[in-house]
Amino acid sequence: MSTVTAYAAPAAKAPLERTTIERRAVGENDVQIDITFVGICHSDIHQVREGWGKAIFPMVPGHEIAGVVREVGPGVTKFKVGDRVGVGCMVDSCRVCDNCKAGLEQYCADGPVWTYNAVGKDGQPTYGGYSQKVVVDENYVVRIPDGLSLDVAAPLLCAGITTYSPLRRWNAGPGSKVAVVGLGGLGHLGVKIAHALGAEVTVLSQSLRKKGDGLRLGADQYRATSDPKTFEELAGRFDIILCTVSAPLDFAAYVSLLRTDGTMVNLGLPEEPVQIVLQSLFGNRRSMSSSGIGGIAETQEMLDFCAEHGVAAEIELIRADEINDAYERVLASDVRYRFVIDTATL
Amino acid sequence: MSTVTAYAAPAAKAPLERTTIERRAVGENDVQIDITFVGICHSDIHQVREGWGKAIFPMVPGHEIAGVVREVGPGVTKFKVGDRVGVGCMVDSCRVCDNCKAGLEQYCADGPVWTYNAVGKDGQPTYGGYSQKVVVDENYVVRIPDGLSLDVAAPLLCAGITTYSPLRRWNAGPGSKVAVVGLGGLGHLGVKIAHALGAEVTVLSQSLRKKGDGLRLGADQYRATSDPKTFEELAGRFDIILCTVSAPLDFAAYVSLLRTDGTMVNLGLPEEPVQIVLQSLFGNRRSMSSSGIGGIAETQEMLDFCAEHGVAAEIELIRADEINDAYERVLASDVRYRFVIDTATL
Repeated sequence: MSTVTAYAAPAAKAPLERTTIERRAVGENDVQIDITFVGICHSDIHQVREGWGKAIFPMVPGHEIAGVVREVGPGVTKFKVGDRVGVGCMVDSCRVCDNCKAGLEQYCADGPVWTYNAVGKDGQPTYGGYSQKVVVDENYVVRIPDGLSLDVAAPLLCAGITTYSPLRRWNAGPGSKVAVVGLGGLGHLGVKIAHALGAEVTVLSQSLRKKGDGLRLGADQYRATSDPKTFEELAGRFDIILCTVSAPLDFAAYVSLLRTDGTMVNLGLPEEPVQIVLQSLFGNRRSMSSSGIGGIAETQEMLDFCAEHGVAAEIELIRADEINDAYERVLASDVRYRFVIDTATL
Repeated sequence: MSTVTAYAAPAAKAPLERTTIERRAVGENDVQIDITFVGICHSDIHQVREGWGKAIFPMVPGHEIAGVVREVGPGVTKFKVGDRVGVGCMVDSCRVCDNCKAGLEQYCADGPVWTYNAVGKDGQPTYGGYSQKVVVDENYVVRIPDGLSLDVAAPLLCAGITTYSPLRRWNAGPGSKVAVVGLGGLGHLGVKIAHALGAEVTVLSQSLRKKGDGLRLGADQYRATSDPKTFEELAGRFDIILCTVSAPLDFAAYVSLLRTDGTMVNLGLPEEPVQIVLQSLFGNRRSMSSSGIGGIAETQEMLDFCAEHGVAAEIELIRADEINDAYERVLASDVRYRFVIDTATL
């Protein structure tokens, strides 16, 4: 066991404060990681505020973890001390169900062990990356390629894989047209990755406020959804719509932008029930789907892809004592495009 | 022009009655067909009763047309007098849009010219198959293989292709598990075709009333949706759910029966808006989609497949003067499994 400094929410909706937590001793297959950077994901806020249901407190959020291996267990084969590594949303899964065997650990039949707000196989609560160190089974650790700085790599562990996985699943690439709804933490990486995959990319955002950014990040078009002409002119255009917002939308209007056989993939999980009218799906064999992060092997593939194509997050680096303010700014969509905590300031 | 006997609804919701209509002269690329049998599709009733919106009257319904070629235009190359042929839901389309060029005429960008309740390229209303003859461009006519009797082939032109197309699109075959919701006109052909494709087939029906039929038609399992155990025991089982009912369902419950990457395909178009909760799609990358009939080439492929595999509709053959009663029985789900009108009785 080791005692490490962390930032935790002591109770639902309470501000986060500095505290200490215990990390387990490094086991046979464990990697102990000195965390250097950790991203703030909107889902941290959903969970701290129990927007997705009852949660476990104290809660140390953080599942966009980048760091350096400090110690390895005797059975570890993939990593050595000093390796640059990342940990995303999962730290374990059953490993034997069809999904785990297919590399889709995120859909583990038993549910994966989430990086925080969960209970590990040892019966202890899991604590996330707003902390100095973390101990994780090597099979749930990925390598951060040398070409990627750790601070801008951290958000790839959730926001990056969450957009990369559906873009791959629905075959984004040369000749395909992708729309990204919302240019935030997820959206800005969706644009970069879709562009790097060779797709034509359009940002659909409420206003044109971030248009310059969108085009700089790789979008071919940037259109305001507040302008009804957007929906007329882009009707039937897209193979894939990646929806990164969790606010209720006029889904029928978005679906009408899909080509035949196109899919609207919802990535943001709203806190309140959101209704879709079934009839909006009729015609042109369009689909509505969702996607959550990606498997471990795919997360590694994504990091390698990002390193190769120069894709990384646009971040605002903050100190640990700015976390609570940063949460307010995330809720106000006032971040370009991901807050990353410098854990040296914990 | 030729005057032919037909059954028509003179106005919305009015009973159908015997009348005469004019068919156009046989043009360069036209085939004139002596209709021998025509199926009664639930969508005939939706349209006669304006359940899907304003319709054109008088209306001669019928888009499950089987017959024999009586005359061909000078430019016709695919058919000759005496050929056994069918006409489904479309009699024309723009032929130049991406969908038409891809053999997806049913999703023609301009909308196909429907077999009835539509206006043809000549500006005249189209009239369906509850009539003695029809004149159709040869490109929208399909051949009924010798192995298929015309009476049991007729329903394949709508109900058959409506189930075959999504089963092919979502890769039903050996190793895949298909659920068919509802054992009616569409459902019974969905079961037969999915079985013939090599998939494992489960019928999900409100009760076990038709279980014997379902198993005889090719289902491996027949489960009652009124039994909550059905949803527990079949959780995560299916690659494809073909939903043939248009009543509102507990979609979240059905979606939970899908495997990872599974798709629920809705074939029945409800008259009233039906709500789906977006959240029900989260997890396991499941999709909700829809599908409508199929293209012309695929309709021919389906007929050839059915002939090869001995698949045909189970029908109740009726006289023309029984049409109005048959409508009531369709609405009461009291038909096993498709009414087909013997047009000799018109």
